[in-house]
Amino acid sequence: PVDLAVIVTPAQTVPGVVGQCVDAGVRSAIVISAGFKERGQEGLDLERQVKAELGRGSMRLVGPNCLGMMNPWIGLNATFAKNIVQPGNVAFLSQSGALLTAILDWSLRERVGFSAIVSTGSMLDVDWGDLISFYGEDPKTQSILLYMESVGAARSFLSAAREVALSKPIIIIKAGRTEAASKAASSHTGAMTGSDEVFDAALRRCGVLRVQSISDLFYMAEVLSKQPRPRGPRLTILTNAGGPGVLATDALIAGGGKLAALSSDAEARLNALLPPHWSHANPIDILGDADPERYAKALEIAIDDPAGDGLLVVLAPQGMSNPAEVARRLAPYAKGYNKPVLASWMGGRDIAEGEATLSAAGIPAFSYPDTAARAFDYMSAY
Amino acid sequence: PVDLAVIVTPAQTVPGVVGQCVDAGVRSAIVISAGFKERGQEGLDLERQVKAELGRGSMRLVGPNCLGMMNPWIGLNATFAKNIVQPGNVAFLSQSGALLTAILDWSLRERVGFSAIVSTGSMLDVDWGDLISFYGEDPKTQSILLYMESVGAARSFLSAAREVALSKPIIIIKAGRTEAASKAASSHTGAMTGSDEVFDAALRRCGVLRVQSISDLFYMAEVLSKQPRPRGPRLTILTNAGGPGVLATDALIAGGGKLAALSSDAEARLNALLPPHWSHANPIDILGDADPERYAKALEIAIDDPAGDGLLVVLAPQGMSNPAEVARRLAPYAKGYNKPVLASWMGGRDIAEGEATLSAAGIPAFSYPDTAARAFDYMSAY
Repeated sequence: PVDLAVIVTPAQTVPGVVGQCVDAGVRSAIVISAGFKERGQEGLDLERQVKAELGRGSMRLVGPNCLGMMNPWIGLNATFAKNIVQPGNVAFLSQSGALLTAILDWSLRERVGFSAIVSTGSMLDVDWGDLISFYGEDPKTQSILLYMESVGAARSFLSAAREVALSKPIIIIKAGRTEAASKAASSHTGAMTGSDEVFDAALRRCGVLRVQSISDLFYMAEVLSKQPRPRGPRLTILTNAGGPGVLATDALIAGGGKLAALSSDAEARLNALLPPHWSHANPIDILGDADPERYAKALEIAIDDPAGDGLLVVLAPQGMSNPAEVARRLAPYAKGYNKPVLASWMGGRDIAEGEATLSAAGIPAFSYPDTAARAFDYMSAY
Repeated sequence: PVDLAVIVTPAQTVPGVVGQCVDAGVRSAIVISAGFKERGQEGLDLERQVKAELGRGSMRLVGPNCLGMMNPWIGLNATFAKNIVQPGNVAFLSQSGALLTAILDWSLRERVGFSAIVSTGSMLDVDWGDLISFYGEDPKTQSILLYMESVGAARSFLSAAREVALSKPIIIIKAGRTEAASKAASSHTGAMTGSDEVFDAALRRCGVLRVQSISDLFYMAEVLSKQPRPRGPRLTILTNAGGPGVLATDALIAGGGKLAALSSDAEARLNALLPPHWSHANPIDILGDADPERYAKALEIAIDDPAGDGLLVVLAPQGMSNPAEVARRLAPYAKGYNKPVLASWMGGRDIAEGEATLSAAGIPAFSYPDTAARAFDYMSAY
């Protein structure tokens, strides 16, 4: 039996093709074709015909009016995008094909991997609840990201989300927070969006984390694909610059995180290593003249300290700092410590090489340390 | 007479050198040397000696413990940073040397220009109030950005800010919002930070715009250096993708902006140009199959429309979109319309060339359309 049919024929022909698939015992189908409910009454009629055909058997259908789906672990690219994403552990489900193509292109540059990418389209059959349940049980998937414009069948979405969020983070961005945006969304998909406050409250009860900006959604894809989740909210910040350390602390606390209190052992080791006027606390300010050697030794102490649930290393380019070399010294700590390691190499030209080294090592390198601190909060607070 | 002395000698020698400068009639000095109040009592004594020497004449002094300052319009680089920034219209004043080196490095990559860069250091003499008044009258400066850890002389800061903010945007990020961060800041500079709520209220009364993240501060440097300020809050969004348009709208409204209502003339011209199922409203969704020609023609209509105070062009890479070519068609609109033009080319590899074209043309190119919409809000709402 055929596992999957990909249907890319004119809308009027789709009900017939779906019917043939049902008759042939095809198990599932993706309808990429557009021209359904987003085109008005005629399209709605076509959808009804498709539903009737589906009702005759057990075939499930993704779409119509979607970009398709990818499963990079088995090399499946059933979309009309030319490149396939890298394999990873994040499932990304999106009601916007354009957002998917953008994140796909971005992920190739940032080396972010996915367990699956699904463009949901009109959700004539397979909907949020189905997808969340499916990826909740998928062993390759460790977290699920959603871009949503319309909720669809709310009850099935919420009950699936509640169950899956117990074991895997679900992170969502929902367009149409404001009335104006909601109107724009409705003209775009033909779907109505509900009250945003009600939705927000429902998500909180389910344990789903909602983010408000595209950058946060992309960053979550990056950190969850590259680093383990922290066991608690305590972050250790290591920096060669006081100001950026303070701004990272502001963001950390505002997002619900905590500064790890250095263990006395770690503090003693840092005292032995660092000039006397280091900060003597977290953020560990190893001072503006820190060279790669000082960074490397402080790094080892900071990551070893069991008082911290995660480590953020900040570097601002200064006279002695050598951003590329510090990145090489940080790279080996990317894995094996069972706590996330994040980095913020600040600047432009001088830090580009170091940034590339971090990215290749699987350490998310943020342009701004406060953004990194917020990402840590999201990781621990979902 | 000597205009400026740059003092980079050990801290104990600084009072003597300052005294010699005063005697020689030097008009101003920058003390880059560290080792003053941030080192405790001994440093405080040295500061008192410097003050006493300054009291004998009229020389003004920036620092100590600072990176120095730059004025790229006259080619002055009185810092220990190796590269000088590009000339522009933004004055950037920072109490963190590391943040300055980071923004400097970043600005060279992003082609952001400055009228001046000043590292304030300990503010033994020249303080926030002096600097704001000075750059408020500087004809090269059209906006002032501040990174602040401690307010110093609050009265002089607030009265200078109130006066200057009437004619030039002042945008500030203040570290130490939270208690934990405030403690970190105090261990870093030796300065105490005050109540954040009081400070916030004072800023609002002065018309100073406060941002909460480093990224927003850098983005403001970029948009203010490259584009004119909008005359009002009405943004026109042109996009080839519905979802990103909706998310940009959410951010716009949440930040206090408004969607421009298209003029009937613009709508008629768009009706003649676009496929019948375009959005028929702002955001102007020119649809996923938009090619460069359709983009170019819609652009001209959108920018001509007097109903909008600014334009945001969004592109998500799709089959027909050709991000590089659309960027070339957008570039000529960077100047001459007396309204800001912002862009968001979403993605990674496929949009890199277009991003570079936009940047070279002076159009800020954001990775995320909602970030761009927020920057527009900041520009109009300062």
